[in-house]
Amino acid sequence: MRKHITGFSNPTVKYLRSLRDKKHRRRAGQFLVEGLRLLEDARASGHVPRTLVMAEGREPHDLLARLEAEVLARGGEVIATSPDILSKITGKDNAQSVAGVFDEWDTALARLDRSAAPIWLAAQALRDPGNLGTMLRTCDAVGAGGLILIDDCADPFSAEAVRASMGAVFTVGLAQARWEEFLGWLRGGEGQLVAASLRDAVPYRAAPYAAPCFILVGNESQGLPEAYEAACDLRVTMPMRGRADSLNAAVAGAVLAYEVLASLAP
Amino acid sequence: MRKHITGFSNPTVKYLRSLRDKKHRRRAGQFLVEGLRLLEDARASGHVPRTLVMAEGREPHDLLARLEAEVLARGGEVIATSPDILSKITGKDNAQSVAGVFDEWDTALARLDRSAAPIWLAAQALRDPGNLGTMLRTCDAVGAGGLILIDDCADPFSAEAVRASMGAVFTVGLAQARWEEFLGWLRGGEGQLVAASLRDAVPYRAAPYAAPCFILVGNESQGLPEAYEAACDLRVTMPMRGRADSLNAAVAGAVLAYEVLASLAP
Repeated sequence: MRKHITGFSNPTVKYLRSLRDKKHRRRAGQFLVEGLRLLEDARASGHVPRTLVMAEGREPHDLLARLEAEVLARGGEVIATSPDILSKITGKDNAQSVAGVFDEWDTALARLDRSAAPIWLAAQALRDPGNLGTMLRTCDAVGAGGLILIDDCADPFSAEAVRASMGAVFTVGLAQARWEEFLGWLRGGEGQLVAASLRDAVPYRAAPYAAPCFILVGNESQGLPEAYEAACDLRVTMPMRGRADSLNAAVAGAVLAYEVLASLAP
Repeated sequence: MRKHITGFSNPTVKYLRSLRDKKHRRRAGQFLVEGLRLLEDARASGHVPRTLVMAEGREPHDLLARLEAEVLARGGEVIATSPDILSKITGKDNAQSVAGVFDEWDTALARLDRSAAPIWLAAQALRDPGNLGTMLRTCDAVGAGGLILIDDCADPFSAEAVRASMGAVFTVGLAQARWEEFLGWLRGGEGQLVAASLRDAVPYRAAPYAAPCFILVGNESQGLPEAYEAACDLRVTMPMRGRADSLNAAVAGAVLAYEVLASLAP
């Protein structure tokens, strides 16, 4: 279905705008993705938006035309509106000329197949959506099965996380769980849990990694709770030659992930 | 000197607030750092603010009292104001209860001593201040001499970059230069320039790194210009097992930096 929207107070505009807010996303079970590049990444991995919102007056574009056709073919909605209204929806002064609404998907642990990959990333209480998206992107790069978000993390469906993931949110596995639930699931099968740690740790280079290896990083300011570290199978430490005793969470996860990749799947 | 400020329209408030803007920072040659933790990191490495702005009504704090004394001892200014005005200055709803104004320092290449460290990071046209700060933090962690910002990068003195650096902006070397200037400086002495690249590259593990090694990463969306890559002494590639062909810039820099660290200074 095609639709024109010209008014700022249109209820659809209000709805789309509300998706910037985590509470509303959760209630609606939908999220908004901005920009043709991300929408094209999504389409390439089989995710077609329910609703496509386009600014009028843009240049014609083959990829966009194909996306539009596919949305309509699947019974979705295509909304044409003014650049101003699209800016209002996305909250950006220089809005992308297109945005799409997707259904959120089930992020239950049970949906993950741990045998699908030798490496997994896990993050506990990760608060920064940019770090979260960057970890999804790293998952894609190292061929990890996906990212497991433990306890209260940033929302993987926020615009910032989706953007930082460079589309990896659509291609790598994603799960959300409380710590106890995660640990129960992990111990119900094979899996080595590895923490970056300062306590009782071995050097991260050439540590005895084993597949499937779950690399766990902690909160940006607190790190991992001591009890969580103690529950890990392996604690590894990276050289810290300076004044600080920790790396950015997404950086620590990536340095470890590349080390595990070299060790397990060279 | 101690001063109380109670009015939002006070010229000092306007000045401090203007430091959120790069253009004004440049003109004033000063930048604003928020939060006691960062101010304490700065003090520990010999940087004392010219001006300290504190919200009234906070709990007494030993570290803050010491900092205040040191600012006054060096002829600086201590401003007490309301939490609301401090929020207006920093632009944050939940402002830290203290902020400090520092003089920017000289970031000329000539100030760097390349023999001081085996590893250096360099970034070209890096636009994200969070990535920039994260790279400074990584420099601290791997014992790098510092970060060289090439062409038009984000401002290392922005609040976001300083925060992401976790104080490393005060401890690691920092330089800014155009590409031609950087290359001239580099070739005026010893130094191996290494790029993360997809073209004509060798695997990054166990590549022939040599100190002082300058690790160069490119712009977040464009990567490095081809001519810049061609000017490098070594092009290395990291495994990319997924759909994407690149990592987050700060992540790529860190994975390479840890590899070079293992190779040169194990």
